[in-house]
Amino acid sequence: TINADRLWDSLMEMAKIGPGVAGGNNRQTLTDADAEGRALFQKWCTDAGCSMGLDQMGNMFARREGTDPDALPVYVGSHLDTQPTGGKYDGVLGVLGGLEVIRTLNDLGIKTKHPIVVTNWTNEEGTRFAPAMLASGVFAGIHTQDWAYDRTDAAGKRFGDELDRIGWKGEEEVGARKIHAFFELHIEQGPILEIEGKDIGVVTHGQGLTWTQVTVTGRDSHTGSTPMPMRKNAGLGMARILEKVDEIAWSHAPHAVGAAGHIDVYPNSRNVIPGKVVFTVDFRSPDLSVIQAMDKQLREEATKICDEMGLTVEFEKVGGFDPVTFDEGCVSAIRNAAERLGYSHMNIISGAGHDACWINRVAPTAMVMCPCVDGLSHNEAEEISKDWAKAGTDVLFHAVVETAEI
Amino acid sequence: TINADRLWDSLMEMAKIGPGVAGGNNRQTLTDADAEGRALFQKWCTDAGCSMGLDQMGNMFARREGTDPDALPVYVGSHLDTQPTGGKYDGVLGVLGGLEVIRTLNDLGIKTKHPIVVTNWTNEEGTRFAPAMLASGVFAGIHTQDWAYDRTDAAGKRFGDELDRIGWKGEEEVGARKIHAFFELHIEQGPILEIEGKDIGVVTHGQGLTWTQVTVTGRDSHTGSTPMPMRKNAGLGMARILEKVDEIAWSHAPHAVGAAGHIDVYPNSRNVIPGKVVFTVDFRSPDLSVIQAMDKQLREEATKICDEMGLTVEFEKVGGFDPVTFDEGCVSAIRNAAERLGYSHMNIISGAGHDACWINRVAPTAMVMCPCVDGLSHNEAEEISKDWAKAGTDVLFHAVVETAEI
Ligand SMILES: NC(=O)NCCC(=O)O
Ligand SMILES: NC(=O)NCCC(=O)O
Repeated sequence: TINADRLWDSLMEMAKIGPGVAGGNNRQTLTDADAEGRALFQKWCTDAGCSMGLDQMGNMFARREGTDPDALPVYVGSHLDTQPTGGKYDGVLGVLGGLEVIRTLNDLGIKTKHPIVVTNWTNEEGTRFAPAMLASGVFAGIHTQDWAYDRTDAAGKRFGDELDRIGWKGEEEVGARKIHAFFELHIEQGPILEIEGKDIGVVTHGQGLTWTQVTVTGRDSHTGSTPMPMRKNAGLGMARILEKVDEIAWSHAPHAVGAAGHIDVYPNSRNVIPGKVVFTVDFRSPDLSVIQAMDKQLREEATKICDEMGLTVEFEKVGGFDPVTFDEGCVSAIRNAAERLGYSHMNIISGAGHDACWINRVAPTAMVMCPCVDGLSHNEAEEISKDWAKAGTDVLFHAVVETAEI
Repeated sequence: TINADRLWDSLMEMAKIGPGVAGGNNRQTLTDADAEGRALFQKWCTDAGCSMGLDQMGNMFARREGTDPDALPVYVGSHLDTQPTGGKYDGVLGVLGGLEVIRTLNDLGIKTKHPIVVTNWTNEEGTRFAPAMLASGVFAGIHTQDWAYDRTDAAGKRFGDELDRIGWKGEEEVGARKIHAFFELHIEQGPILEIEGKDIGVVTHGQGLTWTQVTVTGRDSHTGSTPMPMRKNAGLGMARILEKVDEIAWSHAPHAVGAAGHIDVYPNSRNVIPGKVVFTVDFRSPDLSVIQAMDKQLREEATKICDEMGLTVEFEKVGGFDPVTFDEGCVSAIRNAAERLGYSHMNIISGAGHDACWINRVAPTAMVMCPCVDGLSHNEAEEISKDWAKAGTDVLFHAVVETAEI
């Protein structure tokens, strides 16, 4: 089994980079803090005897050679970027768990037939640059690289320029690598494992999602001197649509969720009736037809609301992926490992999107999950126990080594 | 009568400073553009033979001497700062209309008994630093100067520091001046004069307002993996409160208005359920008891909504003033001037707050209004005709000269 103290120390060391304001992290993609986190990860990988590959999307590939020169590598990893008010484990556990697999193999002097490659996928979170899982998406051929480079953040900065700026744009063609199998360890980010008292989630499926950016346009005018009947209040239109988003999600619960996390009001002045509001609705379900139905309802209801209020509304899809079924062989490798190690486990559907969801399109893929306290994630107070981290990484270790063959 | 072409040219010249994105202006208070606008105004005043006073709040006082050394000055003016997406006339017409009064007196070689002082009051709009009418409020003894200096903008910058930075903090004690009378010309910012086909609004009263900043706190968590029943969605709480704000205002219409113009969502990430939303509700009425009743209803309804959703809510008063009754003598001077000049006119209640509302506390005060197209203001498309500007400034000229005595 792996060295839980070493893993934990590395998690805490990484968490010092891009600290948040409440004990968590703000290490958003392609910031200076991201560059610093990458450098630390690279140092650790080099110290562990790995070579480092870097592709044109900034994806990092730390390689431990195998004994068979013809064998394709087994990949393992996740992402080091965080939400603006993110936790210390979301993504990071999967990357440093992969590193711990290699460190443990080194400790034990074990050579595998297949090389093992630990990855850090760029911009998984999608906060600064939508959509989420951007670089693994380019790797899997979902997006073109040019399109990805042209994504802009709220300040209008381009993804491609920022990748250049922080010095982590590589030479390697994106997606050229062939993958024997990919494993991703991640915290659940939901409450189910903790409630059920299980150490390990064997992830069989992933929810799909759609992100629809809604722009409601009214007319900015004076809050004091514009009579009530003459107002075209885009903020009030947004409020009514948000109520519908909640209604729509509930009408499909428990097999669906929905909310708007991002809302920008213009001109955002206390004494100006909002002339424009831009917000993004996130609908998810393990069932593609439910996602499509919710998005259709949203567009219909929002159009009706805005028509009645003299507002105009536009919709733009800014992200999305279909529900995922993970590879049976890889899923079994994880279940068998948990079984062998004596950890309690259950099948689970991932509520969040992960790089594994895209890599599953181009290689046999599966995920291991461990619980997190109160199911809380995308919050600086995100927490896990060292025991949970150990159990998840043990299972990852065994599944990877079984697949990489000794 | 005044020189409408010269007035219009000055308005257009000033509008070049701090241009907006859609034909209007973004010359927010204490920005570099504000400093540039002040310098241009100072130059024009000096060219017109005035001396310039500057107080510790950055209020500007351009003085044309009178013939009686013992006579208190007649003040006239408004503000040069604008909304982030503001128009070319809101405030500016009142300041440059005051300058036009002096230029016309110079043309005609008329000397008045009382000096005439044209003012530019700092931070009338209250967008960058709440509350509105901040510097005239300090002048009238409503706020202390220290408190005003400590107001911060969204970036955390202090009013006092920014006033220093742009180089327009004067030496003069604020509010030390004694005022014979104050007149403010302003565009209506509402639709009534245009609908009624009147050139001139004789402003008898001003609406009062209260600004209540509402902070709704829930819990940021993952939009995908947090089940619907476990959410504490501060964004949804805000949406329900905004619906109530509208209901409350309508229930008192037409003698009340209300809306939220400013809304900030945290952490504002597409895949994070908002953990906190801060927004400001603006309620107004000419009737103080109605304002108080609306604010009470808001606090009760918002508390109920948040209790039911497991959210917490806090309220903070960030601005407000009571309804105003202007000075009978000054109001008559305006009505008489309109009558004498043959302009159509009507009594009107100001829907917006103005520096005149505060100055009315320390000196006899009144306002002249001219129509604006579609009642639109706090919008870059704000528009008036040159004829309307001329009528308003003619009436201002006559009221000021009558009060300053020849
Ligand atoms: N794991 C995670 O939070 N990924 C971001 C994409 C998503 O919103 O699900
Ligand atoms: N005239 C004007 O827009 N003043 C700002 C204060 C207010 O919101 O009424």
